Amino acid sequence: MASFYGIGVGPGDNELLTIKAVNTIKKLDILYAPQAHKGGRSVAENIAAPYLPANLKIKRRHFPMTNDWEKKIKSWQEIAEEIAKDVKNDNNVGFLTLGDPSVYSTFSYIAEMLAERIDIQTIAGISSFSQIAASLSIPLMLDEESLEILPATADITQLEKAIDLNDNVVIMKIATRFAQVYKILEQRDLLSKTIVVENASMETQKKQRLIDYSVNDKLPYFSTALLKKGNKNVKSN
Amino acid sequence: MASFYGIGVGPGDNELLTIKAVNTIKKLDILYAPQAHKGGRSVAENIAAPYLPANLKIKRRHFPMTNDWEKKIKSWQEIAEEIAKDVKNDNNVGFLTLGDPSVYSTFSYIAEMLAERIDIQTIAGISSFSQIAASLSIPLMLDEESLEILPATADITQLEKAIDLNDNVVIMKIATRFAQVYKILEQRDLLSKTIVVENASMETQKKQRLIDYSVNDKLPYFSTALLKKGNKNVKSN
Repeated sequence: MASFYGIGVGPGDNELLTIKAVNTIKKLDILYAPQAHKGGRSVAENIAAPYLPANLKIKRRHFPMTNDWEKKIKSWQEIAEEIAKDVKNDNNVGFLTLGDPSVYSTFSYIAEMLAERIDIQTIAGISSFSQIAASLSIPLMLDEESLEILPATADITQLEKAIDLNDNVVIMKIATRFAQVYKILEQRDLLSKTIVVENASMETQKKQRLIDYSVNDKLPYFSTALLKKGNKNVKSN
Repeated sequence: MASFYGIGVGPGDNELLTIKAVNTIKKLDILYAPQAHKGGRSVAENIAAPYLPANLKIKRRHFPMTNDWEKKIKSWQEIAEEIAKDVKNDNNVGFLTLGDPSVYSTFSYIAEMLAERIDIQTIAGISSFSQIAASLSIPLMLDEESLEILPATADITQLEKAIDLNDNVVIMKIATRFAQVYKILEQRDLLSKTIVVENASMETQKKQRLIDYSVNDKLPYFSTALLKKGNKNVKSN
């Protein structure tokens, strides 16, 4: 029976795919990859490039980056219909996702649209926050500590509660609301306990404590903050 | 320069190591592996077994499973000293950890003891909660949702807050306090929105909604619960 596979390619380094991801790619008939720009390849496709067989049929599809939900859902439904047709025609179909398909991924919407109609398999990937901790060789959590993960675009009250009530907090997409998050952490004297990793595991990776930024700095899209409230200030390497 | 590598082997399936983990194992001179029982191999070593070169020197060391911190720290310090000596003698030394080395791992303590003395590299791994979501093909989080991860052994107030304030919650080691966690979720009518995965990605894996358990059930040690508060009840497959 043919299946639809959501494949996590990890955060950037192409050695961070799992053996299972690579083996899954090998058995695909068709691979769907998000398209960054017209004619271009996405970050996810570039990461997986060393493992893509020369004869693999690649369908690059555009996923609109917009806040217009109606437009996004219409576009995903069209792609989902095409995937359903391919799988029903007995093709093993893959879908590449950056990081882990279970973490803030468009794959989840496509999978939900198709859940009752075709077999779906998810191949876990290394998430950006896991790689950030690895690149710093510091734990995300220890013993009885908690970790909360949320995007900077969440409700401000939710962000404040996450920061106040947890031992460790990962704030994704911090670039989208940098000044606000900076101020919340500044008020709580937590700037020195927060480290920001820009472009984790990519060639342009940069690590710096939040206290070494200015409130009005512009950060790249793939920037994530890790707050650790333990009794020591975080070091940037 | 020789380094000390913390290597995440993922939650159980030996295809869930990354290419980087396998390549790192290939360049090791010495591998430290936790020892489950006298003369026995640990779960982590069994997972990595297909990738261990025949001539790799394996040092199995016992890590006491106890609440006596003095005893644990003394044992870790002895192992850390031995590792420091091996690395200073120009050996690349590895240390296997189940799942992701950044997630509740003894490796973090050993790494902290050695941080100022030798070069330390962490190789991220697939965590059990990432694999649980993958095995169910459901997202850990979407859009602006939060995820909190904490162990069932945390303070009860912290557990209640985690459950009340987040969209998604992963409760690790649920077996250690199953009845209490069950009752907290029952009071909030969340049993049907919680799924339990026993022995994720191992041959004995079992998935079941919390509502299909009884409060006094005994679960295996590697059992994790995932609460998703979305408007639909979770399905077990």
